[in-house]
Amino acid sequence: MLEELKQKVYEANMLLPEFKLVTFTWGNVSAVDREKKLFAIKPSGVPYEDLKPEDMVIVDFEGNKVEGKMNPSSDTPTHAVLYKHFEEIGGIVHTHSSYATSWAQAGRSIPCYGTTHADYYYGEVPCLRVLSAEEINEAYEYNTGKLIVDEFKRMNKDPMAVPACLCTNHGPFAWGKDAVDAVHSAVVLEEVAKMAFRTELINPKVAPAPQVLQDKHYFRKHGANAYYGQH
Amino acid sequence: MLEELKQKVYEANMLLPEFKLVTFTWGNVSAVDREKKLFAIKPSGVPYEDLKPEDMVIVDFEGNKVEGKMNPSSDTPTHAVLYKHFEEIGGIVHTHSSYATSWAQAGRSIPCYGTTHADYYYGEVPCLRVLSAEEINEAYEYNTGKLIVDEFKRMNKDPMAVPACLCTNHGPFAWGKDAVDAVHSAVVLEEVAKMAFRTELINPKVAPAPQVLQDKHYFRKHGANAYYGQH
Amino acid sequence: MLEELKQKVYEANMLLPEFKLVTFTWGNVSAVDREKKLFAIKPSGVPYEDLKPEDMVIVDFEGNKVEGKMNPSSDTPTHAVLYKHFEEIGGIVHTHSSYATSWAQAGRSIPCYGTTHADYYYGEVPCLRVLSAEEINEAYEYNTGKLIVDEFKRMNKDPMAVPACLCTNHGPFAWGKDAVDAVHSAVVLEEVAKMAFRTELINPKVAPAPQVLQDKHYFRKHGANAYYGQH
Amino acid sequence: MLEELKQKVYEANMLLPEFKLVTFTWGNVSAVDREKKLFAIKPSGVPYEDLKPEDMVIVDFEGNKVEGKMNPSSDTPTHAVLYKHFEEIGGIVHTHSSYATSWAQAGRSIPCYGTTHADYYYGEVPCLRVLSAEEINEAYEYNTGKLIVDEFKRMNKDPMAVPACLCTNHGPFAWGKDAVDAVHSAVVLEEVAKMAFRTELINPKVAPAPQVLQDKHYFRKHGANAYYGQH
Repeated sequence: MLEELKQKVYEANMLLPEFKLVTFTWGNVSAVDREKKLFAIKPSGVPYEDLKPEDMVIVDFEGNKVEGKMNPSSDTPTHAVLYKHFEEIGGIVHTHSSYATSWAQAGRSIPCYGTTHADYYYGEVPCLRVLSAEEINEAYEYNTGKLIVDEFKRMNKDPMAVPACLCTNHGPFAWGKDAVDAVHSAVVLEEVAKMAFRTELINPKVAPAPQVLQDKHYFRKHGANAYYGQH
Repeated sequence: MLEELKQKVYEANMLLPEFKLVTFTWGNVSAVDREKKLFAIKPSGVPYEDLKPEDMVIVDFEGNKVEGKMNPSSDTPTHAVLYKHFEEIGGIVHTHSSYATSWAQAGRSIPCYGTTHADYYYGEVPCLRVLSAEEINEAYEYNTGKLIVDEFKRMNKDPMAVPACLCTNHGPFAWGKDAVDAVHSAVVLEEVAKMAFRTELINPKVAPAPQVLQDKHYFRKHGANAYYGQH
Repeated sequence: MLEELKQKVYEANMLLPEFKLVTFTWGNVSAVDREKKLFAIKPSGVPYEDLKPEDMVIVDFEGNKVEGKMNPSSDTPTHAVLYKHFEEIGGIVHTHSSYATSWAQAGRSIPCYGTTHADYYYGEVPCLRVLSAEEINEAYEYNTGKLIVDEFKRMNKDPMAVPACLCTNHGPFAWGKDAVDAVHSAVVLEEVAKMAFRTELINPKVAPAPQVLQDKHYFRKHGANAYYGQH
Repeated sequence: MLEELKQKVYEANMLLPEFKLVTFTWGNVSAVDREKKLFAIKPSGVPYEDLKPEDMVIVDFEGNKVEGKMNPSSDTPTHAVLYKHFEEIGGIVHTHSSYATSWAQAGRSIPCYGTTHADYYYGEVPCLRVLSAEEINEAYEYNTGKLIVDEFKRMNKDPMAVPACLCTNHGPFAWGKDAVDAVHSAVVLEEVAKMAFRTELINPKVAPAPQVLQDKHYFRKHGANAYYGQH
């Protein structure tokens, strides 16, 4: 069932150690089949070196396991909510990558300090509030996804224009049009987080890049007037 | 004698350079045979690339060498005290890994700033006071172990719930249910120390993660209601 | 056409991932044929692992594509202006290398804090002002090049004595007598940026190195009285 | 002539890129033959990947080339003075390793914050004053060596107990009983510089480690009562 999707999700998961985004088992990638309303996700707590394509678990948008011998990632309910409500996304990545997680632990959104950021994220990468005790105890992983969906709606942010966020005291979620694109976003987020950290230490009074420069770079790569690349 | 234990301790020692926790000979791993009340430990000052399983030294809980051609690690008396008093631990690691040692040199416990920390350590990783001149001159390595045991007792910390500590002006000790688990703790400690360092530079006024979130993550992985992984 | 130049530019581009100056496609190298007044440059948005020598695009000093199946780098107009006005340079590199970009994002020139810097750059590496909205919207990449040329003229800096600069909120450009020399400058710039960052954190009141020491090191490697190396 | 010494110096030079202490050609190792009062040193500006044992240059204690086809390192007069006056040293290393050079650029000695430092250096690693304009213009490299010798004498420091120093606005020199031991010191210095940098950022009010702990660790590894290792 969905063997091709499982293969792609497996390959995207294996990119996480390659890009040094994970230590041990701290991360997971999923990807969706929009027609079948199902997604494939990494099994929980399995070391990357032992992972096989057939280990990927198939789950529906309510977070129920549909196929697979293993337990899906403990973050599965978060992925399910995101697929249900962010209808354009095709892949999701969660990691504890070091710089992005440090911003999340610090409870701060990552300001757009330059074109590297503006090329991928339109405006700051938001850091979302910590969940309440009730939200944590009732359904932690589901409520993490619900918070992301609710906050993007409240902030009027298009998840395809800002394909990542930070969860306070936890770490980053990133997404994209498919599994590889989501990993790409997770890599960029870590680079952007690293440079923002250094930028503030070099100039504690630094302000975000001018909006006109952010627009220039974002729309050089995205939308009808894009002219970056070979399209 | 204890050939299987020596092999495991050898393999665990070889993980230290693999995880980039050691420079030259700065670190050691041991593991215990609880029935025989003996442990195997790395010989002192031998480069990892020259190490062989049969070089491991067998020592009793009073720190006496029972078997082996070489001198055991100079930190052996510390390991002996820990095995004697922390009855659930099966392996111990000492390193001078860079971020954990920097916190130890700074004389500060590592606060729990997020779920990466909470997944492994219940509450802060304590930094223990510097030894007195008398304690240092009388029996430095033995008193290092005694301090760890006494302080965990005084703070009412379960060594299996907080499987690591820092010794001021020195560096980290980490432990676990066996040698590999102890190395695992040393790796996590280094990651957690690195992210806590960055977290404070990003937000100098940051507070520890809410207790309810720490509880959620710790008990998601530990105890009767754990649901992380394939158990 | 210009097959030898394409080969050299291809090889110099492949040095960028080797020296860890680029993530994904974030960088480009070009080199010029001064007689023909043409340069070869990396195509836009092509991953380094897929790049082939024949993909290099040939462009004239007005930024017009003269030969090549692919679109040239989106930064091509910047390169064209630099070749037109900096008549001694033979190669140009643009990257988003992490430390140099952090200084650019911080909007600060890199002071000369020591001999590593003085060996390659005579005086500070300047950070140039952000472009105006008009300059950005009218011809962003061309105006980036024009700014570099105008500012070096205004500051009376010889581009061969200071073969690099930072563009505020963007990143570094580096150049040299040929493509490899330009990559060399980009590598040195990243090292110098990294050490200047650390230097200021170690001593927030640090001042630039004395001019006499800067002169000594610069002229030990450059000019008629140079005595470094085998020349 | 001195083929064995050249081979050893060649091998020690090749350790510099292996331990990531150098970029391009920024570093050199030498070693001495005390009977012949000659030393072998890396040629100037030759990339490590092109280096061959027979390229090493033989120099006397006045800094005169005695044998070799190439120019010796431009830092040769510094090495010569050190061999002449530090009679117990057998090898010398100069690098621009990143953290040690950052301390040198900051003009600060590295305090002894812990046992990693105390195991190798007895007390702080001193940062020596910048040379005067006269000293720089008259005989820069010779006067660098003379400053090191004079300052160690003035501070009453034994060069074998503190086998390294920093030169303000320049970088580190390290030495040891032979070429490999000198490289060893350069590696340790970089680690110690890195951890001291992090230590001060974690606790800006940190004080050096207590003298009794420094003594304990230093004399655990050095002198008549040493008990570290297999001696």
